[in-house]
Amino acid sequence: MAQGLVGLLFGCPAMQSVFDAPGTLQGMLDFESALARAESRLGLIPESAARGISQSCKAEWFDIPALARDAVQAGNTAIPMVRQLTRLVAAQDATASGYVHWGATSQDAQDTGVVLQIRAALDLVDARMDRLCEAAADLMQRHRTTLLAGRTWMQQALPITFALKAAGWLDALVRHRERLAEARRRVQVLQFGGAAGTLASLGERGWDVAAAISADLELPLPTLPWHSHRDRIAETGTTLALLIGTLGKIARDISLLMQTEVGEALEPGAPGRGGSSSMPHKRNPVACAAVLAAAVRAPGLVATLLTAMVQEHERGLGGWHAEWTALPELFDLAAGALDHLCPTVAGLEVNAERMQANVDLTQGLILAEAIKMGLAPKLGGPTAFGLVEQACAVAVKENRPLREVIGANAQVAGLLSSQEIDRLFDPAQYLGMSQVFVDRALSGYKANQKLRQR
Amino acid sequence: MAQGLVGLLFGCPAMQSVFDAPGTLQGMLDFESALARAESRLGLIPESAARGISQSCKAEWFDIPALARDAVQAGNTAIPMVRQLTRLVAAQDATASGYVHWGATSQDAQDTGVVLQIRAALDLVDARMDRLCEAAADLMQRHRTTLLAGRTWMQQALPITFALKAAGWLDALVRHRERLAEARRRVQVLQFGGAAGTLASLGERGWDVAAAISADLELPLPTLPWHSHRDRIAETGTTLALLIGTLGKIARDISLLMQTEVGEALEPGAPGRGGSSSMPHKRNPVACAAVLAAAVRAPGLVATLLTAMVQEHERGLGGWHAEWTALPELFDLAAGALDHLCPTVAGLEVNAERMQANVDLTQGLILAEAIKMGLAPKLGGPTAFGLVEQACAVAVKENRPLREVIGANAQVAGLLSSQEIDRLFDPAQYLGMSQVFVDRALSGYKANQKLRQR
Amino acid sequence: MAQGLVGLLFGCPAMQSVFDAPGTLQGMLDFESALARAESRLGLIPESAARGISQSCKAEWFDIPALARDAVQAGNTAIPMVRQLTRLVAAQDATASGYVHWGATSQDAQDTGVVLQIRAALDLVDARMDRLCEAAADLMQRHRTTLLAGRTWMQQALPITFALKAAGWLDALVRHRERLAEARRRVQVLQFGGAAGTLASLGERGWDVAAAISADLELPLPTLPWHSHRDRIAETGTTLALLIGTLGKIARDISLLMQTEVGEALEPGAPGRGGSSSMPHKRNPVACAAVLAAAVRAPGLVATLLTAMVQEHERGLGGWHAEWTALPELFDLAAGALDHLCPTVAGLEVNAERMQANVDLTQGLILAEAIKMGLAPKLGGPTAFGLVEQACAVAVKENRPLREVIGANAQVAGLLSSQEIDRLFDPAQYLGMSQVFVDRALSGYKANQKLRQR
Amino acid sequence: MAQGLVGLLFGCPAMQSVFDAPGTLQGMLDFESALARAESRLGLIPESAARGISQSCKAEWFDIPALARDAVQAGNTAIPMVRQLTRLVAAQDATASGYVHWGATSQDAQDTGVVLQIRAALDLVDARMDRLCEAAADLMQRHRTTLLAGRTWMQQALPITFALKAAGWLDALVRHRERLAEARRRVQVLQFGGAAGTLASLGERGWDVAAAISADLELPLPTLPWHSHRDRIAETGTTLALLIGTLGKIARDISLLMQTEVGEALEPGAPGRGGSSSMPHKRNPVACAAVLAAAVRAPGLVATLLTAMVQEHERGLGGWHAEWTALPELFDLAAGALDHLCPTVAGLEVNAERMQANVDLTQGLILAEAIKMGLAPKLGGPTAFGLVEQACAVAVKENRPLREVIGANAQVAGLLSSQEIDRLFDPAQYLGMSQVFVDRALSGYKANQKLRQR
Repeated sequence: MAQGLVGLLFGCPAMQSVFDAPGTLQGMLDFESALARAESRLGLIPESAARGISQSCKAEWFDIPALARDAVQAGNTAIPMVRQLTRLVAAQDATASGYVHWGATSQDAQDTGVVLQIRAALDLVDARMDRLCEAAADLMQRHRTTLLAGRTWMQQALPITFALKAAGWLDALVRHRERLAEARRRVQVLQFGGAAGTLASLGERGWDVAAAISADLELPLPTLPWHSHRDRIAETGTTLALLIGTLGKIARDISLLMQTEVGEALEPGAPGRGGSSSMPHKRNPVACAAVLAAAVRAPGLVATLLTAMVQEHERGLGGWHAEWTALPELFDLAAGALDHLCPTVAGLEVNAERMQANVDLTQGLILAEAIKMGLAPKLGGPTAFGLVEQACAVAVKENRPLREVIGANAQVAGLLSSQEIDRLFDPAQYLGMSQVFVDRALSGYKANQKLRQR
Repeated sequence: MAQGLVGLLFGCPAMQSVFDAPGTLQGMLDFESALARAESRLGLIPESAARGISQSCKAEWFDIPALARDAVQAGNTAIPMVRQLTRLVAAQDATASGYVHWGATSQDAQDTGVVLQIRAALDLVDARMDRLCEAAADLMQRHRTTLLAGRTWMQQALPITFALKAAGWLDALVRHRERLAEARRRVQVLQFGGAAGTLASLGERGWDVAAAISADLELPLPTLPWHSHRDRIAETGTTLALLIGTLGKIARDISLLMQTEVGEALEPGAPGRGGSSSMPHKRNPVACAAVLAAAVRAPGLVATLLTAMVQEHERGLGGWHAEWTALPELFDLAAGALDHLCPTVAGLEVNAERMQANVDLTQGLILAEAIKMGLAPKLGGPTAFGLVEQACAVAVKENRPLREVIGANAQVAGLLSSQEIDRLFDPAQYLGMSQVFVDRALSGYKANQKLRQR
Repeated sequence: MAQGLVGLLFGCPAMQSVFDAPGTLQGMLDFESALARAESRLGLIPESAARGISQSCKAEWFDIPALARDAVQAGNTAIPMVRQLTRLVAAQDATASGYVHWGATSQDAQDTGVVLQIRAALDLVDARMDRLCEAAADLMQRHRTTLLAGRTWMQQALPITFALKAAGWLDALVRHRERLAEARRRVQVLQFGGAAGTLASLGERGWDVAAAISADLELPLPTLPWHSHRDRIAETGTTLALLIGTLGKIARDISLLMQTEVGEALEPGAPGRGGSSSMPHKRNPVACAAVLAAAVRAPGLVATLLTAMVQEHERGLGGWHAEWTALPELFDLAAGALDHLCPTVAGLEVNAERMQANVDLTQGLILAEAIKMGLAPKLGGPTAFGLVEQACAVAVKENRPLREVIGANAQVAGLLSSQEIDRLFDPAQYLGMSQVFVDRALSGYKANQKLRQR
Repeated sequence: MAQGLVGLLFGCPAMQSVFDAPGTLQGMLDFESALARAESRLGLIPESAARGISQSCKAEWFDIPALARDAVQAGNTAIPMVRQLTRLVAAQDATASGYVHWGATSQDAQDTGVVLQIRAALDLVDARMDRLCEAAADLMQRHRTTLLAGRTWMQQALPITFALKAAGWLDALVRHRERLAEARRRVQVLQFGGAAGTLASLGERGWDVAAAISADLELPLPTLPWHSHRDRIAETGTTLALLIGTLGKIARDISLLMQTEVGEALEPGAPGRGGSSSMPHKRNPVACAAVLAAAVRAPGLVATLLTAMVQEHERGLGGWHAEWTALPELFDLAAGALDHLCPTVAGLEVNAERMQANVDLTQGLILAEAIKMGLAPKLGGPTAFGLVEQACAVAVKENRPLREVIGANAQVAGLLSSQEIDRLFDPAQYLGMSQVFVDRALSGYKANQKLRQR
């Protein structure tokens, strides 16, 4: 599929290694290998069989194209995997081959394999999150006092600092780290239930085997097998999509700042980066495009995982299958988006002059609320609002600075001195809690860091 | 909209009271009232103003149709609310009316209002979860040993117990209780940032005011305002949708069990319930229909919330708006589905005889794995599998009991005694860990109960 | 639900009348009435019965809250409707009441009712589409030569005309009119199949009755009943969502043009429109917010309708139910978005001066491609590209006009005269096919108009 | 990604060839080649250049991994394609290389390439649709009179014929053929607009070049370039998803019929097909699983395409990118689902005996409506309904045939003779219009066939 051309543009090579065909196969093989060792440890199968099986559980020895072909008839990937594994083992030790996949069912191998992949994938996400948080924190430090027009409804509202904008990003990222940790705790468990989730094939020893596999793979035991209860998988997906939503928000912010007419920040440039095939002057926000695309794609993938939860009886039909590509894609999009945003945030070219110029662009309108708040204690909120609203209309209509219109207003003159008015028109004096919020975000981040290192 | 006819069928009246127009309005008014009290306590506005404002913050005094009309021009509901509130206050105390909404922005009122609604809504969900968990636990106790055909890929697989099926339900529900608690911890926070999230309108006192509102409403403070960071709202939605997915799975199970040809369980009957307008014999799974419909609708609503996360700058355009109906609908669907499932699970008419009859339906095929496992230690897995597979084919083709075909097999006769074979063909002997898993699920549930009561 | 406060903000009152409880009920009653008339015409039921039934088929006589309550037990709205109708008829004519709903099933009444609603709803959409197309065509006429910066990847690219931008809108709208007409042709058909789609309850006369109802309601006959084949309903939804996607694109364009730093177009103003509760200077793009919200919500509703298509056997469980709110919501969003966009496009305040100023903002960079194409015949494309790319870099770095940098380039001087260069730097000379495309769009629109009037 | 293992299970190799990396690249190269030829024909570039360019437009000569890597910096695939193409051409003819991509923009190449892929992809879908329609028509012919329990709400309702069920399938498929043809007519158009959709780079000749490319590629001209109007692409996706919804419905039907307890139809068997890794007796509905998975995945992909429609200005950021994988996946799922269903429907193992047995399973309840309709003319509908409803309750409670209970009813005895009652209890006499509907569906199919062949 087109993936071949754009897989690197949207995704993350390291993540793709986790979920590609060999990675997926190896996940299942790690289960089979641990199963054999566990059963031999408990005396259910000969030690030599376990050894023989374990030695063959190497993805590189498998014929993956054949496996993909056989999956069409089998309806899953574990059946052809077991068949190939049996043949590989038999080639070394015929007896051992009789103990392959002993007492397990296809879904045990596939699901545990996926959980192992999820573990590795979450590690990759976590590492990227660390970098992005650090980049955001750095940006905040560098732009503590950089003035910027705060914008609401895509209109200039009030002055803020650029650090405050980044503080919002960081604060959200820290919450995603919490969510990732919580979801991980639930999803990182063994799947082992046998054909119908009873482990009947292993008689009285089923749970002992489960415990031994669990120890071997360092995967906690669930309360019971969860073949047709897919909330863990779906939650992993929703957690990633929530993160991608925030990354999309950051990319939206940056792409808006980067508009020609705004020009307040630029994605870090590099030769050949963001150019056009026709226009020599272009510098496109390439990273933002990829991240925004991820934010458009993730909700649909989540809808798939949620719809797929309605699975039938002990093991479902079709719903389970629908997960197989949706979850890896979400991981790839999340890691890919992080790979784009980390250097973008770290190397963002901030144009503080342009930020200041844009704050000044409206000739004082951006401080309309400040004036209103200055007058409100004297006039009451609504009256003050009305007075300033009218002054703004005059300023716009006559293209005059609001300071001038306000200054010429007799009623205002009776209430505020010229110095007081000047002060109200100083954007740097109207930043409220910006610094406090930046500090709170940094503290929250550091607290979360500590928590994670424990 | 059609909601008028089917709102009760899909939803929950108590939840609809939380999110209907008066409920939504009251949420905002609770914010305005707490804001005024906080500011008066801090000396920012006169105590009499706070009193006057608080007294008018009653949804029943508002003209809701006018509010809905004015929202079209305003683009939100807070602006016309503030306007009406100001008029109401002014009618009593002109001065007080000058301090309405002092220093706040529309989104502060709307978002905090929504958070207050979410708090009440989560309480409703929690109470229903308690009932459903209890019903599932009861069902497990009553059917500890009731045999049932375990089904995978919609085909009979192995015998299980009905308690085990319900254990899977309960175990998933317990995980959802954890998720609901975690999401609640994050979303249940104040929104208060003023026009651009700096609280500049309150000078140095912004955060003090926030703290005072927080104490008043018993809503924790966030790190900083989160106007355009909607992960909390979206997470609330994903958490509900994950729950709805599990409820849908339970409904799917019940509706499959209730099929005419299966007949193992029936939704509790009632006069006039589940009938048809044309067929006098019909008894339709009405509750399952409503729950399954919820499971079809929830993923799309979540996609909306996730897509809406990509909001612009300090306060977004359109994304914020898209949340306003999506989140209430998810709460209504979740509570409605719980309202359907609680009595369904509690009063489920289980037909144990029919369950047993269905286990016997295949004349032993359902125990094919048991025989295979009986032979495998002697023949090796693959050989045993092949032998039993062939015997199954013969049994199907000749319409004979598998016991008979297996019994007639000379190779088997040399390996297993007739008693041994009989035992392998006893479904009650092939339940593996079913009891253990049921006990584990019950323990897990009790542990979660205790945790919640702390 | 919150719908009560924001229903007018997002939706359309006329559309809400079509799909509200009385509208939905009346749709079913129109079916019942036509059914009785048809059956009496064919001698299957007494004429007096038909008269009695028809006279009672008036939504205003029904107890809608009771209907909504009874729907919870019935699982649909037709069963309680039939029950109330029977009582109403019986109060006048006991015998007639025995012929209510004769031979029909609930879904016949509900689905035909919905189709009747869809017919009325599509009329509302069509009327609004006419207005929006006309507004776009007018805008194009008024701004045939208004220069504007064409923007790609949210960066200035080349000059275009504002008419060309609007031509893209109009052209897409014309395609949506085609799609609406095609979908209408398929969905506007009778549903009448009896309990399992065989019309067995009417013996040999089933299809005659169907034909008579079809004539009465002026609803074409389908090939056969379509109780569990929902492609018509889902297609209606996808067609609306495709339209909403385009409306969202138009709203995105306008909201981007309306940014403080761009300032090229404003939503038409009105007293109290687009203001803020805190900032006196604000003028928010309220219509765009509502339309963009619709574009965020529609994809999820479509996902619901598509997921709901997988219905079981002759009439499904849950999937059918999921349609009941999703389709009306899509109609309401579409009509609401059109109601917002029609006056916005018709009254758009275009600031041609600002458009020109923004074209000039980059000091010539916007014409980089023009220069490249001027040099390419002489230097070859890649060399010309490289030369201009470098000149752009210099211009940006040194903050000089590109004209100056290019003019100072010796290589260029040897190839192009100063007049030639001047001409290349005239944006009005670099509009290519803009006029042609505008004319083509207008012609296409007129052709479509004619086609529709036939 | 996991695609490597399960691509064949879910998708279609022929379709994957259309959309894989070489296929995607070749689509763009076909555009570049036609562009060069068109421009040379119009005298804009030398004939030798066109020849040199055309000769190099062969995907197999490109370094695809390098292209994928460079796409990360470029943000699209056309820029690195143009670069490689330029190098390839230059190696043969330095002058010619100066005319590569003359006057075009990246998106012209990518979009036209995609349209060419869509054309080939729709051909593949059409061919598979032909086969599936034929298989359904055959099935109808073979089972014209095969009795089957019609099921509504997953409960037995009335007897139908198996042909009628298949007629519903066929009828829906015919509508999808109409939709595919209509969507094709709109999407199968050239994309050629240059950097901002004005073709300014080609001066006065832009539209002539477009016309020449259009003739060369046999792709009709659109009204104007459609870079940021993606309704055509999104409609292609919704049309495929609507089809997949119907395929999912067919698969749901088959999987329900195939349940162990129903046993009325089986997917065609083959050695190794549908087996289990643990249970020797299993025969899983593998094709249904894959088709149902497609039906779970398609709605989310459509949501992506619809969300992606909201693109900015003349060419969008992120939305365009999001289409690149979503549309190919929808094509692959559609073709893959068709590849699964064609042989399944063609080779479906129908068990008519079991169908009859299931009709008899309820001892007459399935004919409750027939009895009601027999009594209704004498008793009135509601009274007849009530009488039969009670008889059904007795029959269920006492486990007696309904015929017996009805026969013992004194009131009935006074109204219907024993022969009349017998006739009412004959399912073959209660099929209504089943035959008529089957014939109508076949006629409709043939009419559509003829239309297509024109």
